[in-house]
Amino acid sequence: MSKVQVNTPKGFRDFLGEQARTRQAIINSLTKVFERFGFEPLLTPALEYAEVLKGKYGEEEKLIYEFEDRGGRQVALRYDQTVPLSRVVANYPNLTKPYKRYQIQPVWRAENPQKGRYREFVQVDFDTVGSSSMLADAEVIACAAAALEELGFEKFTIKVNDREIFANLPNSVISAIDKIDKIGREGVAALIKSQNYSDFQTEEILKKITESTPTEKINQLFELLTKLKVRQDVYAFDPSLARGLDYYTGLIFELEIEGYEAGSVGGGGRYDKLIGLVSENTYPAVGFSFGFDRLIEALATIKPKIKIPTGTQVLVTIFAPEFLENSLEATAFLRNQEIETEIYLDPETKLEKQMKYADQKNIPYVLIIGPEEVKERLVTLKNLRERKQEKLKLSQVKAQI
Amino acid sequence: MSKVQVNTPKGFRDFLGEQARTRQAIINSLTKVFERFGFEPLLTPALEYAEVLKGKYGEEEKLIYEFEDRGGRQVALRYDQTVPLSRVVANYPNLTKPYKRYQIQPVWRAENPQKGRYREFVQVDFDTVGSSSMLADAEVIACAAAALEELGFEKFTIKVNDREIFANLPNSVISAIDKIDKIGREGVAALIKSQNYSDFQTEEILKKITESTPTEKINQLFELLTKLKVRQDVYAFDPSLARGLDYYTGLIFELEIEGYEAGSVGGGGRYDKLIGLVSENTYPAVGFSFGFDRLIEALATIKPKIKIPTGTQVLVTIFAPEFLENSLEATAFLRNQEIETEIYLDPETKLEKQMKYADQKNIPYVLIIGPEEVKERLVTLKNLRERKQEKLKLSQVKAQI
Repeated sequence: MSKVQVNTPKGFRDFLGEQARTRQAIINSLTKVFERFGFEPLLTPALEYAEVLKGKYGEEEKLIYEFEDRGGRQVALRYDQTVPLSRVVANYPNLTKPYKRYQIQPVWRAENPQKGRYREFVQVDFDTVGSSSMLADAEVIACAAAALEELGFEKFTIKVNDREIFANLPNSVISAIDKIDKIGREGVAALIKSQNYSDFQTEEILKKITESTPTEKINQLFELLTKLKVRQDVYAFDPSLARGLDYYTGLIFELEIEGYEAGSVGGGGRYDKLIGLVSENTYPAVGFSFGFDRLIEALATIKPKIKIPTGTQVLVTIFAPEFLENSLEATAFLRNQEIETEIYLDPETKLEKQMKYADQKNIPYVLIIGPEEVKERLVTLKNLRERKQEKLKLSQVKAQI
Repeated sequence: MSKVQVNTPKGFRDFLGEQARTRQAIINSLTKVFERFGFEPLLTPALEYAEVLKGKYGEEEKLIYEFEDRGGRQVALRYDQTVPLSRVVANYPNLTKPYKRYQIQPVWRAENPQKGRYREFVQVDFDTVGSSSMLADAEVIACAAAALEELGFEKFTIKVNDREIFANLPNSVISAIDKIDKIGREGVAALIKSQNYSDFQTEEILKKITESTPTEKINQLFELLTKLKVRQDVYAFDPSLARGLDYYTGLIFELEIEGYEAGSVGGGGRYDKLIGLVSENTYPAVGFSFGFDRLIEALATIKPKIKIPTGTQVLVTIFAPEFLENSLEATAFLRNQEIETEIYLDPETKLEKQMKYADQKNIPYVLIIGPEEVKERLVTLKNLRERKQEKLKLSQVKAQI
């Protein structure tokens, strides 16, 4: 029975207390920036009809969680947020275009779990659908940069390339080039040669790519970014950037954060054909996606600007059962002042054990109301971190914490 | 192919723009109250091993979304948040008790979709695990009442009963009594009689229940609620309240909101045995759950106290391509002041069409920077709702909106 197996399935995680609070604070922070750039929230269901997802992810398709529902329909768990976005665009033909939306939800992929790779993870996407203007691309990059700055990141690079640079090269060569940061120029050369290119041809391809100068589109993008006051050190042309997914049709982006070596923290690009695969009308689109877990990991390498709510501030203890009423009233009073307040739940417990509870739970302040305090109409506020305490009026507590 | 079927599966919903924003604002508001009462956030995965969920929901078990994953393990979508909570308590034996947590996540049930009943819906739970103190029950009710008041509800009743009142009655009779609000006393009597009770026995049972006086536990609870300063008109003893789920072991609660007739908006109670079904150690527990969709529907019947963020405040138009730079700079400036600002994405579009876009998207203000404005170093701010406009300095815009 169930007592045998109590873990989460492999690649699935629980988030408790401060971890959950941190995640929510980051999401709130990102949301603020997306709204400031005029993106609207979107929530789509966890399950879609499987046929909506199929034929969109190439080889990765085998990682989709798919099953038959009780009505005999094939359904599948959300695999990314771009295909559901396309389905929404098809479903709501009257949506004003350009449609700018952000979406922050979990996705599910039956990957082999390993360090930093999960089967359930949150994606943070923002996309503009229905504009082929380069200004839409620029806005997406400006928004990504602003979101990173809002979190406190200063040193990062959004690498930009134009898929045009790879015109006429097969996907297998492009994906070899994409690995240049990981395996170096020699490694890439070996990979290309293994595809039956001669030494000369391989050298020609590599030279052509690495010596490419920015295309007209890229120059136009950079000019717009300057006018949008995006700091010039946060974006750069990178001719060897390729991005794995083959649905990109124009500019492509990839985010690197200095000091975070585990890989790219986000990326995106223009995909003018994808929506036409789901929707009757096709729409040009451009977007960006942060990997939420990596963003959190990267935050650990800097001094973040966001404030994580701290949870319970005050534990109101119960000196003895006959003082319960005083403690209850104090609890209600502090909560009325919007102070996060717990009352110790068992009036029979010794004060020492109540203190220990506060300590274990990292609650910084403890309130004590015993016979002395009642007589003097005061309360004792104990600061557990600084190991000091003082008697004061209940109404003075807020100012002290 | 995918173009044939573009809808969400039956019982699954998208939330766009203002709807998504409303949901998030309500969640933020509830979160604040839960934190104020010392509950900690918890997030659990969408998928659990099926055996964790099974044997917990009685007859409803057939509504679980269950399937075999690629590794040949049976997995299931979260069906409620109480069983995952029990699994967490089992998984983290060192968690300080009492463990007070809130959890706001979607759950999935293969119900027959109908008005107000979905297959994916959000639950809002808060529970205290590891305390059998009546104060834990009182805190849960006080927190539910505070959450409702935070949203702006004034007239609601948390009905309270003690399962003890039904001692020795079979579940079939209890669930008949539970329907008294819907089908009346006569209806309940008919249901009981159909279970082979005589007229006399039926009358005895009904009399015993409806004329019950509050048990000692209930009196104790009400006394604690008074001391916790919970308004006395928001809770009441109801001897015919039974609650469907058979895992309740003590006090049970159910929320009714005046003016909202579609049913109960939440409920809960004490369940001292459930965690022992999943965890090696058993823990007494008490909790409350809001139905998020019903809460939102009920909010439509009152003047809510919460503020829904409004989305884009200003659309910066592009007077003509040669004024693009001015518009981009103004956009960056307004965003720096934390004003939600969009720039119209196509510089070639006629101003009239740009205005129409703002109108369709309900953006209240439009900014225009043409030759006159550039010469005067001013901008024109147009209020689309009040149909008036004025020229002012860019730095004065914030004060105007």
